[in-house]
Amino acid sequence: MTYCIAASLKEGLVLTSDSRTNAGIDSVGIYSKMHVFDTSADRKIVLLSAGNLATTQAVVEQLRRDIKEQTSSNFDTVHYLSDAAEYVGKISLEKQHLNVEAGQGQSSFNPTATFILAGQIKGERHGAYLIYPEGNFITTSVQTPFLQIGEHKYGKPVLDRFLRIDTPLEEAGRCCLISMNSTIRSNASVGAPVDLLIYRTDSLSLDESYRFSEDNDYLISLRKIWQEKLKEVFEILPHFSKEDSRPLLSDQ
Amino acid sequence: MTYCIAASLKEGLVLTSDSRTNAGIDSVGIYSKMHVFDTSADRKIVLLSAGNLATTQAVVEQLRRDIKEQTSSNFDTVHYLSDAAEYVGKISLEKQHLNVEAGQGQSSFNPTATFILAGQIKGERHGAYLIYPEGNFITTSVQTPFLQIGEHKYGKPVLDRFLRIDTPLEEAGRCCLISMNSTIRSNASVGAPVDLLIYRTDSLSLDESYRFSEDNDYLISLRKIWQEKLKEVFEILPHFSKEDSRPLLSDQ
Repeated sequence: MTYCIAASLKEGLVLTSDSRTNAGIDSVGIYSKMHVFDTSADRKIVLLSAGNLATTQAVVEQLRRDIKEQTSSNFDTVHYLSDAAEYVGKISLEKQHLNVEAGQGQSSFNPTATFILAGQIKGERHGAYLIYPEGNFITTSVQTPFLQIGEHKYGKPVLDRFLRIDTPLEEAGRCCLISMNSTIRSNASVGAPVDLLIYRTDSLSLDESYRFSEDNDYLISLRKIWQEKLKEVFEILPHFSKEDSRPLLSDQ
Repeated sequence: MTYCIAASLKEGLVLTSDSRTNAGIDSVGIYSKMHVFDTSADRKIVLLSAGNLATTQAVVEQLRRDIKEQTSSNFDTVHYLSDAAEYVGKISLEKQHLNVEAGQGQSSFNPTATFILAGQIKGERHGAYLIYPEGNFITTSVQTPFLQIGEHKYGKPVLDRFLRIDTPLEEAGRCCLISMNSTIRSNASVGAPVDLLIYRTDSLSLDESYRFSEDNDYLISLRKIWQEKLKEVFEILPHFSKEDSRPLLSDQ
């Protein structure tokens, strides 16, 4: 399993991903799910990946090859981020279909993959797109400034509460790390190292990039403070009022 | 959809359930999912239900009829809570199978139901059982003192963080309400009124029962304080350290 978040905010982008892959509970590996590409200087494009590892690796490799071999469609030739998303969707569909026939009859075989593409092409605003296994895609809105792929439910409440279009990037980064931490606690198939990228709009630079291992001091202290402070909040929550009590009836 | 929690703690039980049912997004209703039964004075048994509403209603009605008609197996004749769970599993399977044939060919027809049975029979400890659609069941442990049915992921992190076997019942109740609130925020098919029952071990009384409507003052203040205080915690979280930064490489 996987958990990745992309927040597209006023000031720029915040991308977060875990690194655990598993093909069965006894086949666990570590792969970064944040992929960056050697594109020309007028653009920065990052891909987050979830789903079948063979498919996501094949897609990422094809995207890199297309840049290197300067094929007609590639991350360097697209004019808009949405074109880049469409192009990834096309490659993803091709790679998923390659092994479908061979896998028929094996009910557990699932070659699907989901991606988030985020970045900026000079002259255009930064943005993020979630690309479904079918190749179609959606982007963020002012009201819904984030996208998630993989095991998204455990970590969604904290994003719903605190990620707003005008949240400062560092604060959004901490919010994503808390969301990631909640997911890692609740699902053993999501795990560290955690990658975090902060992209400031118009900077065309990917310099603010972090990797946190499981025993990273910062991540440990973040976890600890969050847990302790939440516990303190619990202790001051108001108590129920007798006014709200009512008999439990057997005929309701 | 549905969300129900049962915590089986040292001091007793805490049960929480929502009340929204939906058969499609344009067919939404309000039904309590916390069912109590007119059993003899030496026992209290409560059932929480999730899944197909026709199935859960048929099961609850059959359970009530069996008590009334004093059939050989019913909530009054069982000697152990686990026998009650097994009996509910049997009735549930029967009711699910009734309509399976008629529904074949309709891929969206799903008659399955999941239950939590909780309570106490005099002379035995209180307990809680999660009864799967297949009729088998599991109970809690000291390390895992709670069970969830329905839309369980959004609200699990807060339970994982704070519900312990020795958590006082009122505090556990507030924890379950926060968990319910997070789920209601993130999934439109889970909704108020919220039922909450606190059962003190050996009391054989269901008097501490609450129902909170959507605009209930207590629930609103709980939500508001939780949101505000969490926001304050966010503001004091430590900032990332440059030490953890690393270049994003295109060949990793």
